[in-house]
Amino acid sequence: MQEKDIEQLKDFLEVKSKILLGPGPTNIDERVRRALSEQTISHLDPDFFNILDNISDLLREVFQTKNKITFAVSGTGSAGMEMAMANVLEKEDKILVLKNGVFGERMSDVASRYGASVIEMSVNWGETFNQGEVIEKIKSIKNLKAVSVVHAETSTGALQDLNHIGNYLKDTDIIFIADTVTSLSGIEVKTDDWGIDVCYSGTQKCLSVPPGLSPITFSDKALSKIQQRTTKIASWYLDLTMLINYWGSERVYHHTAPVNMLYALNEGLRICHDEGLNRRFTRHKENGDYFDSKLEVMGIKSFINKKKHSSLPMLKSIFIPDAIDDSTFRQNLLLKHNIEIGSGLGPTKGKIWRIGIMGHNSRKDVIDILFNVLELYLV
Amino acid sequence: MQEKDIEQLKDFLEVKSKILLGPGPTNIDERVRRALSEQTISHLDPDFFNILDNISDLLREVFQTKNKITFAVSGTGSAGMEMAMANVLEKEDKILVLKNGVFGERMSDVASRYGASVIEMSVNWGETFNQGEVIEKIKSIKNLKAVSVVHAETSTGALQDLNHIGNYLKDTDIIFIADTVTSLSGIEVKTDDWGIDVCYSGTQKCLSVPPGLSPITFSDKALSKIQQRTTKIASWYLDLTMLINYWGSERVYHHTAPVNMLYALNEGLRICHDEGLNRRFTRHKENGDYFDSKLEVMGIKSFINKKKHSSLPMLKSIFIPDAIDDSTFRQNLLLKHNIEIGSGLGPTKGKIWRIGIMGHNSRKDVIDILFNVLELYLV
Repeated sequence: MQEKDIEQLKDFLEVKSKILLGPGPTNIDERVRRALSEQTISHLDPDFFNILDNISDLLREVFQTKNKITFAVSGTGSAGMEMAMANVLEKEDKILVLKNGVFGERMSDVASRYGASVIEMSVNWGETFNQGEVIEKIKSIKNLKAVSVVHAETSTGALQDLNHIGNYLKDTDIIFIADTVTSLSGIEVKTDDWGIDVCYSGTQKCLSVPPGLSPITFSDKALSKIQQRTTKIASWYLDLTMLINYWGSERVYHHTAPVNMLYALNEGLRICHDEGLNRRFTRHKENGDYFDSKLEVMGIKSFINKKKHSSLPMLKSIFIPDAIDDSTFRQNLLLKHNIEIGSGLGPTKGKIWRIGIMGHNSRKDVIDILFNVLELYLV
Repeated sequence: MQEKDIEQLKDFLEVKSKILLGPGPTNIDERVRRALSEQTISHLDPDFFNILDNISDLLREVFQTKNKITFAVSGTGSAGMEMAMANVLEKEDKILVLKNGVFGERMSDVASRYGASVIEMSVNWGETFNQGEVIEKIKSIKNLKAVSVVHAETSTGALQDLNHIGNYLKDTDIIFIADTVTSLSGIEVKTDDWGIDVCYSGTQKCLSVPPGLSPITFSDKALSKIQQRTTKIASWYLDLTMLINYWGSERVYHHTAPVNMLYALNEGLRICHDEGLNRRFTRHKENGDYFDSKLEVMGIKSFINKKKHSSLPMLKSIFIPDAIDDSTFRQNLLLKHNIEIGSGLGPTKGKIWRIGIMGHNSRKDVIDILFNVLELYLV
């Protein structure tokens, strides 16, 4: 960059605010912005340890768990996924991965990189798995170490029920890994009731905190398996056996925690707590229904066949109306109207849009703004 | 946590500000705080791509490199270290790791976890390597893939010269990895001149940005080696071959970038640019010397034998004066005077303190505050 180019920038960074209705990040509350900009303190300061304890406690609320090992990974949701795989799996371990979108595929890729023997079970994008069939598949695999599944598939908007699978796995030696990146704090995630052993999420979806951290929780069963490993965890950065000494009562330095992002997560979780989880779920449900009713009026079709499959209230995948050019339309929406929506990924690119109405942005007035603009182009 | 405990907390997070004179994080400038709290936009927004380009350009300035592949890893400095090792090394590859403190030890651990055959060369903590001897060692190892070394050893305050080693390695097939976590933007880091192929740093030291990102740069030689790999990189999250498609012109989604932390890094780098690198180095040097002169007056001894080894201007390791109880003293300093300094690690615990005068905090008035308080206890 030439010196003059840099000089031309404003003295302070000023970002033009947009309405974020893509698949994340969402807009963030003023309280979170204020927390972010608090002066940094040390990752080894007793005052900071109180914040870490608070985060763990509030995460236990949203994960609906009593798991002692509940904290935030110093990386985004994908780092949480990698943390789950890297710690649970040893070379040649068998894992069953359920695939019905991008994030199921990613699980499969990550697990295989860590040397696991990956068995895939697939349905088409936009579809969900029959839990009974999954349980039959699990029964058919000898020496299965883990099962992993995406609760809320961000690439399609499909909602996968987990309760029966988890209930079956509870009485086995098999570790149940669930990706709740898009669902956490927007719909029920009952980690303990559903028998999930490793449950991870992201901050930039329904929690409405900037991207950069991955909330995660490990059951005693998962921890015990990890402690019984005979090989070292390949990732030093994501090694649970060391990280728990920092997040636990010993407070042993591992890496320098991302202090200000943790302030933000703490505040985002406090906002969830202030609203109350059930009220938050109801709000997401009502606004999801409101979105669907507006969609029906406009004659736009959902990508998910709702008669056959469950869909998410906070992430709507819809067919792009005929005669609309996908990228031109989304560009206009962003540049002229300051509204972001998401494109399709992989096989759905150019066919669907993904619209996130998550956390801070799950509001009727925001949905109205989007539809008022859609009407300009579509009616 | 009981509900009442959470209710007792203040509505907004208010952190008691401290003077951070430990080995990082440092205090951050108002401009960085303001950038942090800008409203989040999407990681796929064209406005955000401009910020990413700006970060890469400004990082090339501080790394003194022309490397195209220059960006920030979505994790702390240790994630940068892991990124270097995970991408460069394949199983059984030989790496020579120079060890004279915690971060050399960590390099060795990380490399071995990724299956490398680690050859260690060690000197005592607080000492530095003779570059001629290192080159002789390198010559003695057949089929060496990489050499890795810590430029500024944060656990001891030792400064390792790299120019001759790098100059020798330039004409070989061997990859040179350097950890500049504590040195970057405080003293010269001449990535290209010194022949460093993979150079990584952290944000929370001399850049005075909160912890959470790791600036990193890869030479063409390193990139070409990585592209010739015959095995997949074990870490998906840190896989350079995918990440360069997001940071490069293609802008392919990999993971959701930590948007607000990148705002902060951009602003921290703009502050470096505004000051000018050479003026910044001079400031660190002068304040380091000022610190040493105050130390001498008080009769406190440096841990580094400066007649034999180079030391850092931004991280001072000093022997704890007799008759002072380490942890009581540091606790008083933090709780009564709001000043943080660092303890020794490993073999130096209870023997030395580590005092960081980095970036925003490399100032005479801050050093004076520290010494005024030290005098209360020590004189």
